Amino acid sequence: MITDVLDLAKNLINRESVTPVDAGCQKLMMDLLSRHDFKNEIMDFEDTQNFWSIRQGASEGPVFVFAGHTDVVPAGNLDDWNTDPFEATEKDGYLFGRGAADMKGSLAAMIVATERFVKDFPDHKGSIAYLITSDEEGPFINGTVRVVEELMNRNQPFDYCIVGEPSSTAELGDVIKNGRRGSLTGFLKILGQQGHVAYPHLADNAIHKSYQALHELSQTHWDDGNESFPPTSFQIAIEKAGTATNVIPGEKYIEFNFRYSTESNADQLKQRVLDILDSHKLDYQVDWKLNGEPFLTDEGQLLAASKAAIKTVCDRETQALTSGGTSDGRFIAKTGAEVVEIGPVNKTIHQINECVKIDDLYGLSDIYYNVLKRLLTDNA
Amino acid sequence: MITDVLDLAKNLINRESVTPVDAGCQKLMMDLLSRHDFKNEIMDFEDTQNFWSIRQGASEGPVFVFAGHTDVVPAGNLDDWNTDPFEATEKDGYLFGRGAADMKGSLAAMIVATERFVKDFPDHKGSIAYLITSDEEGPFINGTVRVVEELMNRNQPFDYCIVGEPSSTAELGDVIKNGRRGSLTGFLKILGQQGHVAYPHLADNAIHKSYQALHELSQTHWDDGNESFPPTSFQIAIEKAGTATNVIPGEKYIEFNFRYSTESNADQLKQRVLDILDSHKLDYQVDWKLNGEPFLTDEGQLLAASKAAIKTVCDRETQALTSGGTSDGRFIAKTGAEVVEIGPVNKTIHQINECVKIDDLYGLSDIYYNVLKRLLTDNA
Repeated sequence: MITDVLDLAKNLINRESVTPVDAGCQKLMMDLLSRHDFKNEIMDFEDTQNFWSIRQGASEGPVFVFAGHTDVVPAGNLDDWNTDPFEATEKDGYLFGRGAADMKGSLAAMIVATERFVKDFPDHKGSIAYLITSDEEGPFINGTVRVVEELMNRNQPFDYCIVGEPSSTAELGDVIKNGRRGSLTGFLKILGQQGHVAYPHLADNAIHKSYQALHELSQTHWDDGNESFPPTSFQIAIEKAGTATNVIPGEKYIEFNFRYSTESNADQLKQRVLDILDSHKLDYQVDWKLNGEPFLTDEGQLLAASKAAIKTVCDRETQALTSGGTSDGRFIAKTGAEVVEIGPVNKTIHQINECVKIDDLYGLSDIYYNVLKRLLTDNA
Repeated sequence: MITDVLDLAKNLINRESVTPVDAGCQKLMMDLLSRHDFKNEIMDFEDTQNFWSIRQGASEGPVFVFAGHTDVVPAGNLDDWNTDPFEATEKDGYLFGRGAADMKGSLAAMIVATERFVKDFPDHKGSIAYLITSDEEGPFINGTVRVVEELMNRNQPFDYCIVGEPSSTAELGDVIKNGRRGSLTGFLKILGQQGHVAYPHLADNAIHKSYQALHELSQTHWDDGNESFPPTSFQIAIEKAGTATNVIPGEKYIEFNFRYSTESNADQLKQRVLDILDSHKLDYQVDWKLNGEPFLTDEGQLLAASKAAIKTVCDRETQALTSGGTSDGRFIAKTGAEVVEIGPVNKTIHQINECVKIDDLYGLSDIYYNVLKRLLTDNA
């Protein structure tokens, strides 16, 4: 029995699974997978629900993983929506609801593609697996990162992984993501000496002291990027200093963020920031948070299969890009797997009236099916 | 009958007159003055109590004004005080309490100096007047500024004015203030285009754009000052920009303050700021608040009499300075009067355990008496 993609997508959307709540989405997926000889394993950590599920094929072969998340971002102001965000609604060929595009539609497409594939090729080679979390939209502490850690400790191999993130921009399959930039945040405090504005000679204005170094940081050319990545970019996102107009501030607080290419690494970037601050003889404190290292799935079996599948299903040349925000793909790439993100059009994600084209749900399921066929059978 | 300076200072301190409350201080002063042929006039505006009081002498002559305020700043945390701030307490030769130095001690010294002077020289020339407010520590909207406006409309002449602000630094009379710098505040918004840090090409970081112009402003030499004023100083006091680490800020908010000498004026300074912002091709909005124009009482009768009085009473050479914060003296200077601030040691003002040396209250009263004698009699 093959599930209907639209029905399954609706069933998932109707469950109010705002991070880290899962609301039964994962049980629903596991129940469907278990009908097809998948072995489910619940891997919850703290407040986060995760599962890992794997089906061994008839012969040796690569391990192919579908990865994704059942959680969604909050709906925001309900009055701004045209429909109930947690009651999936069809209208004019689109399915509306929170998570329609990010990424319950993709989850439905994966499950149905798997059902069809297993029915058509029960003796496929290798394995098909699922790695699903409920905290991708949250602090990404107890989700994919911990499951991957645990599976790597068990020496579970990973060869290929499709993450169902909404990668398409205008039409299904026009863009897939074959990597993501790294993200490094710095929390900087520049120190001076507080005082009264009427007595500037007794103070040392932390704001005034900061400008030259911060200007240099904002103008620095960090690297040229490469064929797969744009040049590393640096943005100061937050500045806070001062308490009152008659007080010279004794410290200035700054938050900045690097989105960096594989031409740089976090340690190099940190050192270059420190060198610039030191060259301006500043007194400062800095803390760092490495949100994610960059990853890149260069030409290989998965990328080739993905491009070919999109060409077959959509008759479209896809673009493989590394732009945009971070995703859980970066944690899975650590296993050494080839990782690609393929999903529906991302125009409405995290917004009111989030929606997905209903035809694209079926098209996406066909793409996933076609990739499975290319990688886990000899019938491509 | 001559009032005792210490008794009167205590009586005033015991009245909890936190801005704009007066708590009967002004009535007490007026009652004492009316015994000596002063004509009192209550001049309240909105929530602020003020009075003007004048005594005509026996012959033509200059109008000499004592100016001051009955309000005090809040006591802060009462547990931090060694004594009740609103119960004047003598200890080790000092009088403790909120307002002891700023400026109820000075008010007591003025009243007693006046009583003695009028008793000794009932036929003095010119006039003695009082201009007292209850909002000097507050927004200075309905106090001295409005009373002066009203009196100028009536063509009330002002020749000399002593403001009782605590001008002394280490010992009574070591410093008097013969002017104050101007104070001009700017509220600046630098505009860019908000965006996501992952897509810097779609945004225009308001923080990054700001640095060169703000650095130039912070380094600009505005003037050299002059014999009476230090050079004009510019301080950026507040910076605020950004909401989250992954958002490129579309605007940056800045507050800055000029303390300026008589070598510059507010319009010039504003224009120079605009010129610098424009030279960096910034998109910005700026609002201004002129807190006070600078004033200077150069060599003249009042300054000479004040120096001579301090020499006589304290055997000390006084320094006439224009440093420090603003005071109500700037509003009185608009009348064309010579204005000098003479008061006790300011070390503890606006702090816990505010105090004044009891001997200095008597000494200050002697100084005021001596100035009156020099300016309103021929017996100097």
